[in-house]
Parts: sequence; C-alpha cells; structure tokens
Amino acid sequence: MKRIGFLTSGGDCQALNAAMRGVVKTLEHAEEPVEMYGFMDGYKGLIYGDFRMLTDRDFSGILTRGGTILGTSRVPFKTIQEPDENGLNKVEAMTQNYHKLKLDCLVVLGGNGSHKTANLLRKEGLNIVTLPKTIDNDLWGTDMTFGFQSAVDIATEAIDCIHTTASSHSRVFIVEVMGHKVGWLTLNAGMAGGADIILIPEIPYDIKNIVEKIEERDKEGKAFTIIAVAEGAISKEDAKLSKKEYQKKLEKYPFPSVSYEIASMIQEKTGREVRVTVPGHMQRGGSPCPYDRVFASRLGAEAGKLILDGEYGFMVGYKNREIIKVPLEEVAGKLKYIDPSARIIKEAKLLGISFGD
Amino acid sequence: MKRIGFLTSGGDCQALNAAMRGVVKTLEHAEEPVEMYGFMDGYKGLIYGDFRMLTDRDFSGILTRGGTILGTSRVPFKTIQEPDENGLNKVEAMTQNYHKLKLDCLVVLGGNGSHKTANLLRKEGLNIVTLPKTIDNDLWGTDMTFGFQSAVDIATEAIDCIHTTASSHSRVFIVEVMGHKVGWLTLNAGMAGGADIILIPEIPYDIKNIVEKIEERDKEGKAFTIIAVAEGAISKEDAKLSKKEYQKKLEKYPFPSVSYEIASMIQEKTGREVRVTVPGHMQRGGSPCPYDRVFASRLGAEAGKLILDGEYGFMVGYKNREIIKVPLEEVAGKLKYIDPSARIIKEAKLLGISFGD
Amino acid sequence: MKRIGFLTSGGDCQALNAAMRGVVKTLEHAEEPVEMYGFMDGYKGLIYGDFRMLTDRDFSGILTRGGTILGTSRVPFKTIQEPDENGLNKVEAMTQNYHKLKLDCLVVLGGNGSHKTANLLRKEGLNIVTLPKTIDNDLWGTDMTFGFQSAVDIATEAIDCIHTTASSHSRVFIVEVMGHKVGWLTLNAGMAGGADIILIPEIPYDIKNIVEKIEERDKEGKAFTIIAVAEGAISKEDAKLSKKEYQKKLEKYPFPSVSYEIASMIQEKTGREVRVTVPGHMQRGGSPCPYDRVFASRLGAEAGKLILDGEYGFMVGYKNREIIKVPLEEVAGKLKYIDPSARIIKEAKLLGISFGD
Amino acid sequence: MKRIGFLTSGGDCQALNAAMRGVVKTLEHAEEPVEMYGFMDGYKGLIYGDFRMLTDRDFSGILTRGGTILGTSRVPFKTIQEPDENGLNKVEAMTQNYHKLKLDCLVVLGGNGSHKTANLLRKEGLNIVTLPKTIDNDLWGTDMTFGFQSAVDIATEAIDCIHTTASSHSRVFIVEVMGHKVGWLTLNAGMAGGADIILIPEIPYDIKNIVEKIEERDKEGKAFTIIAVAEGAISKEDAKLSKKEYQKKLEKYPFPSVSYEIASMIQEKTGREVRVTVPGHMQRGGSPCPYDRVFASRLGAEAGKLILDGEYGFMVGYKNREIIKVPLEEVAGKLKYIDPSARIIKEAKLLGISFGD
Repeated sequence: MKRIGFLTSGGDCQALNAAMRGVVKTLEHAEEPVEMYGFMDGYKGLIYGDFRMLTDRDFSGILTRGGTILGTSRVPFKTIQEPDENGLNKVEAMTQNYHKLKLDCLVVLGGNGSHKTANLLRKEGLNIVTLPKTIDNDLWGTDMTFGFQSAVDIATEAIDCIHTTASSHSRVFIVEVMGHKVGWLTLNAGMAGGADIILIPEIPYDIKNIVEKIEERDKEGKAFTIIAVAEGAISKEDAKLSKKEYQKKLEKYPFPSVSYEIASMIQEKTGREVRVTVPGHMQRGGSPCPYDRVFASRLGAEAGKLILDGEYGFMVGYKNREIIKVPLEEVAGKLKYIDPSARIIKEAKLLGISFGD
Repeated sequence: MKRIGFLTSGGDCQALNAAMRGVVKTLEHAEEPVEMYGFMDGYKGLIYGDFRMLTDRDFSGILTRGGTILGTSRVPFKTIQEPDENGLNKVEAMTQNYHKLKLDCLVVLGGNGSHKTANLLRKEGLNIVTLPKTIDNDLWGTDMTFGFQSAVDIATEAIDCIHTTASSHSRVFIVEVMGHKVGWLTLNAGMAGGADIILIPEIPYDIKNIVEKIEERDKEGKAFTIIAVAEGAISKEDAKLSKKEYQKKLEKYPFPSVSYEIASMIQEKTGREVRVTVPGHMQRGGSPCPYDRVFASRLGAEAGKLILDGEYGFMVGYKNREIIKVPLEEVAGKLKYIDPSARIIKEAKLLGISFGD
Repeated sequence: MKRIGFLTSGGDCQALNAAMRGVVKTLEHAEEPVEMYGFMDGYKGLIYGDFRMLTDRDFSGILTRGGTILGTSRVPFKTIQEPDENGLNKVEAMTQNYHKLKLDCLVVLGGNGSHKTANLLRKEGLNIVTLPKTIDNDLWGTDMTFGFQSAVDIATEAIDCIHTTASSHSRVFIVEVMGHKVGWLTLNAGMAGGADIILIPEIPYDIKNIVEKIEERDKEGKAFTIIAVAEGAISKEDAKLSKKEYQKKLEKYPFPSVSYEIASMIQEKTGREVRVTVPGHMQRGGSPCPYDRVFASRLGAEAGKLILDGEYGFMVGYKNREIIKVPLEEVAGKLKYIDPSARIIKEAKLLGISFGD
Repeated sequence: MKRIGFLTSGGDCQALNAAMRGVVKTLEHAEEPVEMYGFMDGYKGLIYGDFRMLTDRDFSGILTRGGTILGTSRVPFKTIQEPDENGLNKVEAMTQNYHKLKLDCLVVLGGNGSHKTANLLRKEGLNIVTLPKTIDNDLWGTDMTFGFQSAVDIATEAIDCIHTTASSHSRVFIVEVMGHKVGWLTLNAGMAGGADIILIPEIPYDIKNIVEKIEERDKEGKAFTIIAVAEGAISKEDAKLSKKEYQKKLEKYPFPSVSYEIASMIQEKTGREVRVTVPGHMQRGGSPCPYDRVFASRLGAEAGKLILDGEYGFMVGYKNREIIKVPLEEVAGKLKYIDPSARIIKEAKLLGISFGD
C-alpha cells in the first residue's frame, strides 16, 4: 500500500486540477493499492491536519475545470518559520502530520514561495515531488509553468476587447496585466494583443519615451495607443531606489496600482484621456486552455512516474521541449526573469513595440 | 439620387458596424442611386464638417467587427447648446452641414444623450432616423438595445473566471459591472454568472443585509461569496440624499468607484478578504455576440426601409418581439429602469439571490 | 413533505442543469421539506424505476455545466404506447412508479416528443410541470426554448471560422446546421454569421436560384459564397412529394445528408469547389451561453413556483417577454414553424440574403 | 530601394496575416525604402503575374485576423513541373515574373508541398525566405508551425462540446481531427479534450483494442467513450498494404472518411450507437490564438531580419525554444512524424489513453 498526500499552495491558477488528475491516473498503474489524502487550503491543511481521503471519483471530469478541488492559500515562507498564535511550530506540525498519516510522498503544486517550503520539508526528511504552478512563469528551473498560457489568453482577450473601444474613441488605454515581479505574462499578452507599448519590471521605463511613442503614433494618424503594463512595472528612477525606499514610496502612493500612476503622468504630459482596465483575478480563472491541459497532464503523469519509481525531492519541469526533473534545492528561492537582451525583446522591438527604455 | 449621412455617438458598443451594414445593404434596394456620408467621431463630425464619403466596400466584412468604423465621442447634451470655444453655435453648424451636403436623411446610432440631440435636430427640420445603441439597455421605447447582450456575455465571463478563483481561496469577490444608472447589465450578468448578491441602482442596498448573506453562506459551508455590483449601485442611506448632496459625497470619495466602498465596508464588518475586479471598458469591446449581430442587422434593415419609404423622425425599436418605430420626441430624455417589483426580480430572489434590500 | 420527481428527455441541450437548479432553488422556499428524485435517462428511468435521490448538493455548481446530470434518451412517442420486449405496458409502468414513490409532481424537461408523453401522463392523472428544452426552438406555445441561443452561438462560430478559410480559398462552403424540421437555428446562425444563402425547411429552394446567387457574387468580385443549410432543408420539387415518397427518396440517398446533395448539385452546375462542414452534435454541447442561463433559471424558478402553488398540468413558456404557463394539452403534438412571410425573413432579404426561393 | 514579394501557399491557417505583418513591421527598419508586392492565391499569382502592390496600411489591424489577405491555393508540386493548359512552363514563368519585378527576395508562407516549390525556385537562383505555416505541424526542421496551436484550440473545443452530449446520452462519439498524414493535431486535441482513445497515423490501430477499451469503460460504469481520430488514422492491416493497394481500397470506400469506417466497425461489434463529428475546415479558421500570434509575429520579425541582412535560402524555424534558420534544401520533401516511442505517447498511456495498439 502506498499513501500519497496532495496539496495546492499559493495563488490559484488554471490546470491545477488537470495536473493532479495526471498524477492520479498514473498512480492507477501502481502494483500495490494507493491511498490518497488531500490537504485543504495549501500548507494550512498540512499544518493543522485538515485533510480528506480522495478517490478516483474526485478526479473524474476535472481536466477542464479551473481552480483547485483542494482549495489553496498563501502562507508566506517567513510565517512558516514563525510559531502560530498558539505557539505551534509549523514545520514540526507538518512533519508530524505527514508521519501520522504514514505518507510515502507529498505532492505539492505551487509557485515560488511554495517551493521554498517544499524544500524545507524535504530537508526534514519528507518525500516530496512538486509541480510548477503559476500564471507568472517566474519559476526557476523550468521553461514553462502551467497556468501561464491560460492567463496569457485571458489577458490577451482583455486587450482585444479594449482594442475596438480604443480605436473608436481615440484614447490611450492601459491594460494592467498580472505577473508579480516578472514580465512574462505582460510581454506575451502585449505582443499577442498588438500593444504599442509594453512595460515590464525587467526593463524600467522612462515616461518621456512613452509620451514620445504616443505622439509619434499621433503623427502617423493612429489616434489611439494601447499600453500593456505589468503590475510590477517600474520607472528608471524608482529602479534606482533601494527596496526599502521603493516600499516606502508605495505606502504613500495615492494610486491603487502602478497603472494609475502611469496614466496620471500621461494625462498630465499629453492632455489625452487615459483609461485603465484591470482584469485582475480574472487572469487566474476559467477553464485551462488546451495548451495548459496537455502540459499539466504531461507533468502530472511524469510526477506520478517519479512516485512509482520512488524518486523524491524533485520538481517536474520542462526544458528545451523535454520534460525533466529538477532537484528541489536548486529551485527554491530563485526567480526566472526575462533577460532584457533576449531575442524575444529584440523581435518585439523590430515589431515596433516600445518598452519605454 | 438620395444622400444619406451616418454618425455613431456616445460610448461605443458592439454591433454598431453590424447595424450600419444593415442600413446600407437595405439602401442597395433603392431605385435611385444612394450617396453615403460618414461623419467622424459622432456629432463632432457633423458640427465641424468632418466627414468622408462611404462606399459599399466600407461596409464589407464588418458584421463581426467591434467598435465603429466612424469613430465616436461623447458630446453631452448641455454642451451641444453652448457655443464652442470660437463662439460657434453648434446646432446651427450641424443644420448647415446637413443642408450643405443636401442630405435626405441622417442616421444616428446612439444612446440616451444622443437621442436628445437627435430630437433637437429633428425639431430643426432635419430628417432623422435613429438606432438604439447602448450596452446599458436603458433606452426608453425599446425592450432591447444592441450591444447589451454582448456586454452581458463579457461581464458573465468575468464572473465565471472569478468563480473558480473565489472558490479556491474562500474569498468574497466583487465584480463591478457597467450600466450607468440602471441595473440591466448587472442583473443579467449576475444571474448568468451565479452571483450570490446583486446590487443595482433601482434597489438601494443595506450593508447589513449583505453581511448577513455572506455569513449565512458561511454557515451553509459555502466559504466564498460573489457580488455583482452595478457601477451605479447605491445604499439606502445615500438614496435618501439629494442629487447634489450625493454628488458632493462622491467628490470627496476616497474610492475609485462604489465597489471599493462596498468592499471596504464588508472587510471591516466581516474581517474577510474582499477582492474587487473591474472589467471596465472590456464590456464595450470585442466582436458582437450572435444575438446582437442578428438584432442589429434587423434594426438596420428596418431603418433602411424607413428611409426608402421616406418615413423620418423615428427610432427603430423592439417591443414584444416585434420591430417597431417610435417617434423621436417620445424617446428623448427618458430612461428605462428596472421595476423593483418586476417578475425577473422575484425570480432572482426565488433563486436565492440577495439584492441587499 | 413534498416529493418531486425530475427527468430530462430527448436530445440533450445546454442549460438543462441550469433549469433544474432553478426549480430546486425555488423549492427551498417550501414550508414543508421537499424530497427529490431523479429518473435516469429520460422516460426510461420512469418506466423501469431507475432513479436516485437528489440533494441540494447535486445542484450546486451546475448553472454553467452543459449536458444533464440525469442523463437523457429519446423514447419516441409511438414506442411509449407499445409494450416493451417483456410485454411491459410502459404507460402503466410510469404511472405505477410515480405512485410508488408517492410523488406530488413530476418535472419534465423536454422538447416536442417529450411533451406528447408528458400530456399522456397528465391524462393518466399525474401532476406534471414541464420546461421547454430544445436547440430547435420548434416548441409550440413559447417564443423561445432554452438551448436555442447556445446552439446559435456554436453554429455561428462555425460559420465565422469557415468565413476566413472561404475567403482565402475562393470556395463555396456549406455549413449544415441542426434544427430538425424547422429553420430557426439556421436562420439565426446564418444571419449572425453573414451567410449569403440560407436554406430552411419552411422555404423550399430551387437550385437554379442558388447557382444564380453564386454567379452574381462572382460578378461583384466576391469569389466565395457561404451557405447555411438546415438539416431539414428541402427543394421545391421534393416539397411536392408526399411524406412517404420523400422518405423513400431519402432511403436510396447516396449522401450522408441534404448538404452533400446540394453541394454535389452546385459543383455540377458551377464547376466550383464546394466544401461541406457539419458541426453536428457540437451544437448541443458546451456551457450554456449567458442568455440561456438567465432564461432557463427564470423558467425553472417559475416552474418551482407552480409546484409551490400546486398548479399542475402546465408548460412554463415565454410570450411577448413575459413568462407564462401553457396548458399541456395545447402544447402536445404541435410544431412552431417560421412563417415564410414573417418580418425577419423580409429583413434577411433586405440584407441581401437569398433563400433560394 | 528593396523590392520584396509575398505569397501564401497551400491550405490556409491562422496567423498567416500575423506572420506577414511581422515581416513588414521589421522591414520598416530598413535604411532604404522597401516596395512590397503581394502575389494573389499562392504560386498561381507568381506563375500568372497576378499581384498587387502592398503598403503598410494593408498590414494594419491584421494581427488578429484569420485567413490570408493575399488568398491562397494548392498547386501540387508535380503540377508545378508540368506545363499549364497553354503549354506555359511554370517554373520559367515564376522566375521571369520575379525578375520582371526586380525582386530582391520572395517571402513564401507555406507548408510541406510549398517548401518543395520554394526550394526549386531557390535552385533557379531566386532569393527566398520562408515561414513554416500549417495546422498539421508536420514540417521538418522546426519544432512548431504557426496555425497548429489555434487548430488544437478549435479541435479541443469540439471535443469539449461533444463531452457534455456524450455523457448525457451514454454514446460513443468520434471526433475526426485534421492533420493530414501525421497525428500531432489529434494527439494534442485528444489529450486536451480528455479523449479516451486517440488514433493517429503513426500508431496503426487494431479494432479489437478499441472495442476492448469501450467495454472496459462500460464495466467501470463510464457509459460513454470519446475517440479522437486523425483523418489519416490507419488500421494495422491497412498499414501492411502498399501505398497503391491502400489507395485502391480508399477509392472503393463506402465512407466519407476513415472515422465513418471505424464507427461502423464499433457499431457492428458492440451494438452501441456511435456518432461522428467532423469539424473539418473550422480547424483552419477564426482568429489566431494568442500563442500563434506571438509565435508567428516572432518568426515574421526574424524573417524580416534575414532580409535586412541579405541572408536568403532559409526557412525560419523553432528549435529548443530558440528561433533558428534552416537551409531550404534540408526542409524540402521531408515530413515530421510523431515517434511512437516518444515520451508524450508514454505519458498519454499513463493517463489511461488507448491508442488502439
């Protein structure tokens, strides 16, 4: 008998269910029977022993369903190391709950922060296999994360919708795209949606260059401009601040997000009407796109295979179109940024896109 | 020879192009040749004589295209009556441009405000035929406006996306839906998306009832709640204020829109995390849905027929599944609200939806 | 205690689950507790006593889900009246199973054929409430059926996709649309998709007129033509045949469906390449569109209300934008056809659409 | 002054326009002015001198538009080498027209067959740059072709729709997917749509195994089965035939396509109702998906760069997530098949998918 635990952690995304289904379908090939436990709401469920037994039926028909049947929550890595309000040592609690259920392996579907905790548990001697989940595609060690392409699709649809209204009204439109501290989502949605300007954290912008691009378009008779702004976009000036100083600036911020600051600057400098659209959490939701369903299913199958083979301590990743296993200690704590000199950035510039740099 | 002018006015919406194509296709049945003029950016084009000649080719392939090939702008009715910065009398200017081009008829695609101006021009002796365009469905004299169902589709998709993320995170989510001062869009998108609470201008809410509903759902084991909030939603207290007092309150408002105020109240009273999503102008964009394409094409055909028959001074409307013509003077200046005692409201309540009343 | 049975019968369509959810949500307002029984696979479940108890949980989250959680089957009306292979009297069996479970009411979601059986059961003294389900919109007594608009959306999307490939290749394309013996689905999808020719059962076509339209388009420089063909489309000649004669002709038919016959005639007469696309059962599937979700939910709520009020023997319908109740004996056995002289047909012709008549 | 010709050849697909726009936007960076010529309907336009001058305006707003603004046609490679009905030597004609216009380069967007002709023209001394276009993804020398992911999306949507109706009716459903002689499209759409059986040309099937899988599902209480069948699927027996013998068999075929043969065999052997859906040319149509828009734009930009740098004789391809240039002589005449022992096939089998082998 094998006993396998599952948890989904961090911001939810599309294809979490598809990935778990992939693991479970593969475990059906095990020689011995497999018992499955689902921890509710991410690491919280593991800490507080909130779990339920899962059967094949739980995974039937979920390939196309968004969200996660296990629920999720964000438990920042630093709070993992602090005791909870009752003085409970969380790492100890997780280790104990793992052993109490006599688990052979814990499958963690998570992003960046979740991998730090996963690696910690590995060091505590737990058998861990992880799957790279995030709409941000910022996970180190894998070319691609599931959820990403689905989020690109939704953000692109937002830009597509805005396109018709922008061209009818001769306005400047900002679409704020998620992506945390990296620009993958914004870059891809911006290119797919035909944005004229794309602002990403990896390439700090100068407002002058943005204004210039808008005016240049004006002269060419293109009365509207669409700007895809990453939620983590930053100006050249702000990029020079220390992390602390920037944090302080944001605290006094009169704007709900950076897009509104950029909008206000453009309005001031050009006199043009600027509208901001924030699709926000929509980008995490809905049915996974076909790409993500195939991708997450494949990763899930390979994770299942690792468990069948008793190989633990790995994240299943994707490199050069091959599915690979990456040691957890290599993944934890690193972010995958866009290289500003990457070929895709050069191509985007050839296509006439300005990055405000 | 007939000479027909076209203009699209006010906020853009889906199926504007489909409706114009309907008129033009019908005018091809005219015995005499028809010359067509498009005024750019709404009434502005008529005021300042900014127009271009249109041919059948301009209308080819635009059935499915969002936006408007003529551009649009909002020129509030009261500014119509004021002279412009050079002292130009705008009504006179429009009348003169109409006569200069020897137009037989002007086709106006517009919403509420645009109909007031259209009626004014009718009184000046111009031949006017109008088409009811707005995502708000608030136009008096017609059961339905084109753009509405397409906007319902987009707002519903937003709620659908939020649904998966809301249920994964056990959060309260607010989706702010457009609709100006009426609740049609929010009511329909809310019902279609399975919102638990729907707040519309016609039914002022009490925050206590909202909190109660959230807590009731909690007790039933449903850890998340989705609230569809019309951009014009109003509390019972605020509804008692005079228009002026309410305006004053809004001016001092620390929130970008009512949704954020409601979110802050819920957060305060329940301690729950509340997230706000504002699809915003997305709701005006994208390709018209099949319903709107058929509907706008039919209205356009009937408008074309009125022109062929020399019947002017009407809006083409829709009543009891029949296409009708409504005298412009009846339409101008009235809004079509939801009746709080309407059957659809009772049905929504039977379905378990709270209106916070 | 009230005891209510449910069954879904005939070809499946979108929003069946939404409609049942509407009934169930409304029954929660009953003063006494309600017990619910679901008969599996349509009338078969009622005949053979195949049912399961349903709880509120069965109806949670199904608003947006296509298909039917109860399964369905087609049991043609005439086979209802025949004994089954074991000599079982089916009407008796259904009546007995109804009484065995001490049902207060049976809710039937069905189309044309299903309403005949429903009316038969009513005559046997059973309390019946029905809901008008069909993608064909051919049900007498209601302006609209749920499933219809969702099917229009899918068929339109098919035509949209074909549009780009047709225009790239200068081909004639036929898209075969469902709809049984009526043309509602084809007419609406054809108008929404910008079809050049629409062939529906209510307006028999002459192949000469089709060829003429294709050649006319050729002369105008439009090298492609899109034809929306209803699965029940019929030529003028065939329309003169008796039902028996036409049946005989179809039996010897070398074509999978009428579209292929029409394609072969066009190819022969014009030498043009003709391609046929048959989206087929796709038109019944997928998530219901927002229109259908609202509509089915409303009908469901009103059906629930009839049950709460003890009013039986009715179909809940929709007339002039009002939800109404229609006596079952009026509905059963009638079809709702398109009137060839209806305004929408005239409008379609004004838009330049040929019906081949 | 540079003079560049464009043509799109073979079956159309999504993102052809996006790719051309990518080239053109990049050519705007040329130091000397660039004149652009579009040959109409593929190689036909080049053979018969049917072209038009193109300006930037032709490429504005086409990023999201399906089809090709230049039209396309299939001119099989062997007919290229034959004289036309007037005795015209086609290769000579193409070469002459190229020189008559003093072209510096011809950009060919095409699939397999088109690359053979492109290579032939290269051997004749023409400067050629090509872009890998096909929904089949069967082009040698590149991991991915544009059009492919968009077609996967449409085929998956078809399976999704069928899923709800299949599960409601307990039927066996076959969805026939395009892909010519390779299985990429069917494999990906089948995995994304959750097909139970996937039949591709690279893995010949045994009908016994298909029947077995259906019966196995039956025993597990899953009353429906969905089969994704590639249009080029082949049985083990037929795979043993010579190409000629198989061709002969197909000529006498009573079925419109292989799916119908498979359906008939399943029906015969299981007594189950089997329905076939053929989305057909829909798979080539509609707006390109975001993935394809980005991908085609990037390839287009790199092709533009090759032209700016005067590097000719290459196809722009994609290998290990890097954009590369592949000598035309290496590409021409080769097909890229799925390796039956590839990891993705093993993963699909772990997921419980049968290939009928």
